[in-house]
Amino acid sequence: MVAEIIAIGSELLSPYRIDTNSLELTEKLMEMGIRVGGKCVVGDNEEDISRAIRTAASRAQLIIITGGLGPTNDDKTREGISKALKLNLIFKKEIHNQIIEKYRQMKRNAEPPDNLARMAFVPEGAEIIENNVGAAPGLWIEMKEGELYILSLPGPPQEWRPMFEVVREKLSSFGNHFFSRRSLRIAGLREAEVEEKISPIYTGVKNPSVTILSSAEDIQIQIWGKAKEKQEAERLAEEMKESFLNVLEDNVYSLKDEPLEKVVGELLRKKEKTLAVAESCTGGLLSHRITNVPKSSDYFLFSGVVYSNEAKIKVLGVNEKDIKEHGAVSEEIATQMAEGVRKTAGADFGIGITGIAGPGGGTKEKPVGLVYISLSWEGGAETKRFRFPGTRLQVKTYATSHALNMLRKRLL
Amino acid sequence: MVAEIIAIGSELLSPYRIDTNSLELTEKLMEMGIRVGGKCVVGDNEEDISRAIRTAASRAQLIIITGGLGPTNDDKTREGISKALKLNLIFKKEIHNQIIEKYRQMKRNAEPPDNLARMAFVPEGAEIIENNVGAAPGLWIEMKEGELYILSLPGPPQEWRPMFEVVREKLSSFGNHFFSRRSLRIAGLREAEVEEKISPIYTGVKNPSVTILSSAEDIQIQIWGKAKEKQEAERLAEEMKESFLNVLEDNVYSLKDEPLEKVVGELLRKKEKTLAVAESCTGGLLSHRITNVPKSSDYFLFSGVVYSNEAKIKVLGVNEKDIKEHGAVSEEIATQMAEGVRKTAGADFGIGITGIAGPGGGTKEKPVGLVYISLSWEGGAETKRFRFPGTRLQVKTYATSHALNMLRKRLL
Repeated sequence: MVAEIIAIGSELLSPYRIDTNSLELTEKLMEMGIRVGGKCVVGDNEEDISRAIRTAASRAQLIIITGGLGPTNDDKTREGISKALKLNLIFKKEIHNQIIEKYRQMKRNAEPPDNLARMAFVPEGAEIIENNVGAAPGLWIEMKEGELYILSLPGPPQEWRPMFEVVREKLSSFGNHFFSRRSLRIAGLREAEVEEKISPIYTGVKNPSVTILSSAEDIQIQIWGKAKEKQEAERLAEEMKESFLNVLEDNVYSLKDEPLEKVVGELLRKKEKTLAVAESCTGGLLSHRITNVPKSSDYFLFSGVVYSNEAKIKVLGVNEKDIKEHGAVSEEIATQMAEGVRKTAGADFGIGITGIAGPGGGTKEKPVGLVYISLSWEGGAETKRFRFPGTRLQVKTYATSHALNMLRKRLL
Repeated sequence: MVAEIIAIGSELLSPYRIDTNSLELTEKLMEMGIRVGGKCVVGDNEEDISRAIRTAASRAQLIIITGGLGPTNDDKTREGISKALKLNLIFKKEIHNQIIEKYRQMKRNAEPPDNLARMAFVPEGAEIIENNVGAAPGLWIEMKEGELYILSLPGPPQEWRPMFEVVREKLSSFGNHFFSRRSLRIAGLREAEVEEKISPIYTGVKNPSVTILSSAEDIQIQIWGKAKEKQEAERLAEEMKESFLNVLEDNVYSLKDEPLEKVVGELLRKKEKTLAVAESCTGGLLSHRITNVPKSSDYFLFSGVVYSNEAKIKVLGVNEKDIKEHGAVSEEIATQMAEGVRKTAGADFGIGITGIAGPGGGTKEKPVGLVYISLSWEGGAETKRFRFPGTRLQVKTYATSHALNMLRKRLL
């Protein structure tokens, strides 16, 4: 089955907002074996909505519409559906009563405005999907003896997500295939290195399909297995995942879509170890990422963002002479920062990062993107030299991911 | 004139990628007085592309297509245009030669593959737009005696941006109106407070149009003035901007779409002052934001991310007894952190932040979202209590913006 997604709202045609509902819906549909064949955005205009629905109906068997179901005159989805599919809008008294009742509950008995009545007009033959979060109910319509289905949902995710669950079983029965997804998150390798390792496995293979998403933060591989039987789809995806794991080994840090900082945090917690970090070029991004994980205070003690040499010397005990001799961006200083912050904070592990994030400040010997990362522990240390590409933010992000990954490998 | 944007590429129908080209194109078109009436995404399929173009042509006078112009068999935009508009594809020898020539230059005389020839097929009557960054040329087509224009561009922004400039003049002449934009960025006020101040000015006003975008980082107001004459559009937007400035006063931190950390950084640089910060609940996000600005090392000295009480005491000299008496999340500790870090780093200003970012760790007296922010300077200090809503990341973001704003107001 092919689906089409229509997002309704003039604000989605401005330069400031984007339809992200369709991404989440696409993933849900794919898992049910329903392919999204197209998507579009139209404004709050009855004629435009109607035309979009008619076009979609000419090529898709399932149309999912988000937005435009509210009570104001700008909310034209009901009218658009009615016009496109030649279904009369019928006023449903019992739905009006429910809407009023809910309004009174939510607004502490305030007088409901007249325009709520608009939401009680329903295309004939449509089933109502109750909205337990917001006011506007959703719609489910079956047409052409099961050749066309329309699902109309409100725009806000917190409203449509639970409403989608109501029709999940129906939708699941439409998929002619089962899809099964596996995801691998990889740190410490470049995209070309990942490609080199896995391309002999998946080149020429159409099922499962493989998508590689590369960013400064990490590399993600998405595997989708497809089959008539659920078990077969699972097997296909699982086998490809295992083959990838064989060559990528412990560079795979998560099979559960977790961020690296969460994986590292769980390792620290499990091993009852603590961490302190000293950041120069990453400027606080490493500690920001670490502390995005709830309860990270259990294992994260301190970060010194030591932009100035004085701070490096005073807070971390870095040797002033060594800064003069080797420069602040050097293996020696990274190592001293890692050890200094570990001792200062009384932590089990210390990380030190120093480099040139750019865009200015690079020289021939020490170009933009040059970063030294050091990991220190009781009785040992490891310091690596990197050269990262990209913008200031990308260099910061690459450096933090590699630092977290060095710690992860040590903890394994 | 109404435009429609079509993004082509099956990858844009996956859950992992989104068409962001259309946002940038929309802004450029709006500035020329061209309204975007709809947009859609279709896969690399000739029939789907053709249908999308036909549908767009039925309601728009300008169709902008991005993607699908490359040399592979998946690149079907040329065929889709040809089919939708009944224009034959004609092989242009001189374009083929140019493409081959460019390929040889870029790939150091490697043998050009046969499929480059695909890019030399041009719908009859189309003008070629040269691509100086990538391989695929763009297309400009005028149809129906000036009733319909098609602009077909490659997908990557670095390729289409300069190509768009080639047709800018033509497009500018199409807009029946001029649009003029003003933007205000606001810190230190809640959305409801901004609304209360400005709604008497713009309620009921259709031109200029006003959009308010609220996030944990800041509140942005976009004003678009529209008129037949450029000067009049400018005047309308400028007057509304001035009226807003009158009531929002120095809560407006930028009229130039700059982030708050850049504005604060420029003030510090201008006044030759330095800054050090001590972060607890914001976990490094404040220093990350400050150091996202290139050359921030000129004024930013140090941040201590003091998650543990030991670090607060040892690095910042916070009084242990006061932590026991008032708790780490308190006015007293925020103030001591700000002063402590200022003295430790030898900076002109110190900021201290302590709070409960959640989702756990809240109590009745000290709920999630409670944050104390203190600003310290030689001879004075100011400490404020906040209660921020939202997720862990939102609380972190709100706190950093309010901290930067306290410093900004002090510097003014």
